Amino acid sequence: MRALIFDLDGTLVDTVYAHVFAWQQALAEAGMPIDGWRIHRRIGMSGGLFARAVARELGRPLSTSETDALQRRHGEIFEQLLPVRRPLPGAVELLQHLREAKVVHGIATSGSRPLIDSSLEALGVGPGTVVIERGDVARAKPEPDLFLACAERLGVGPKECYVVGDAVWDLLAARRAEMLSIGLMSGGYGDDELTRAGAYRVYRDPAELNDSLDELGVLS
Amino acid sequence: MRALIFDLDGTLVDTVYAHVFAWQQALAEAGMPIDGWRIHRRIGMSGGLFARAVARELGRPLSTSETDALQRRHGEIFEQLLPVRRPLPGAVELLQHLREAKVVHGIATSGSRPLIDSSLEALGVGPGTVVIERGDVARAKPEPDLFLACAERLGVGPKECYVVGDAVWDLLAARRAEMLSIGLMSGGYGDDELTRAGAYRVYRDPAELNDSLDELGVLS
Repeated sequence: MRALIFDLDGTLVDTVYAHVFAWQQALAEAGMPIDGWRIHRRIGMSGGLFARAVARELGRPLSTSETDALQRRHGEIFEQLLPVRRPLPGAVELLQHLREAKVVHGIATSGSRPLIDSSLEALGVGPGTVVIERGDVARAKPEPDLFLACAERLGVGPKECYVVGDAVWDLLAARRAEMLSIGLMSGGYGDDELTRAGAYRVYRDPAELNDSLDELGVLS
Repeated sequence: MRALIFDLDGTLVDTVYAHVFAWQQALAEAGMPIDGWRIHRRIGMSGGLFARAVARELGRPLSTSETDALQRRHGEIFEQLLPVRRPLPGAVELLQHLREAKVVHGIATSGSRPLIDSSLEALGVGPGTVVIERGDVARAKPEPDLFLACAERLGVGPKECYVVGDAVWDLLAARRAEMLSIGLMSGGYGDDELTRAGAYRVYRDPAELNDSLDELGVLS
């Protein structure tokens, strides 16, 4: 294997629970209360698919303006709840290690700029790192587009890439891109759920992954 | 089986994600940032054990005054985040169904009054329902004390009780009380994790449990 492609939220930064609660608040304010666990299980999929899933729970379609307003309000509440992004344990060190060891790697996220900028800054990710975000592709996870675009920008074939993600949507998108995948428990999914969704290996967080790079054959 | 004993947070009311985020904020404010998923996996255990787990993550013991201050601040942030408690889908109907069908049942929670009062009110639980809370026993989950005290107040033997809970701590405490248990996914644990922790059956939420009461042999 030659390259690692990372998800961002829940994989490198500790933002999943703030995202869940921000969605829960935004939906409740709009008169569409949805259970926290159902939101949690859908974090990381595209905003459009998320809105369609919400609509299914509610039993009626959401208009484009409703979807836009919800996404905007979610972003506002998220910023209020979590003005400072915190890297997950080992995330900064892992990325630094990969840079020093010259392991090809990038980030591919369903999140959008400017919401992801402070996460990238907290991780110490500079302009030298390939970052593919929602706006760069037509379709987000669980479609494979984000990961395929990242591989292309990294100059490696899909079969040479490992995807590292915390959600089943990352693992499903990886399969569809013909990439192997590694699950991290730091987004709140259990070990079994990640394995069942196709993760080749599961680690607790970026720190444990960093200690286990030898197992993956990416270090030369 | 003659009786059902319910956990409260994540089992009957949709409060888990607010609790996780409130702990995360309270801990971060106190200079002790802890990953959201690690907090999530510990919701439902006793506050004392939770504090000890936090101390282990931090690598130093917490004083009693630190623990008390954290618990107080968690309660404040929780009330700000979630001034209105929302019953999980089917929870109100399930409890009403049990009352009408004269199925013996009670609630046993690691939560304390007055924090749990608005949850009980939202569920329509009146003084006729047995509620055992943290202050009623010496040791909370995963010790079996809450469930054993509830069975005693209900006038049934432990082996005649099903525990219904969303966290592995409920299921572990049920085993130690020699009770069978039912897992609900509404607290954010996956199916496999609940089954592996000893759940005899797993349902999505109280609504699905209500539709499945015939499978449990509690209706006469």
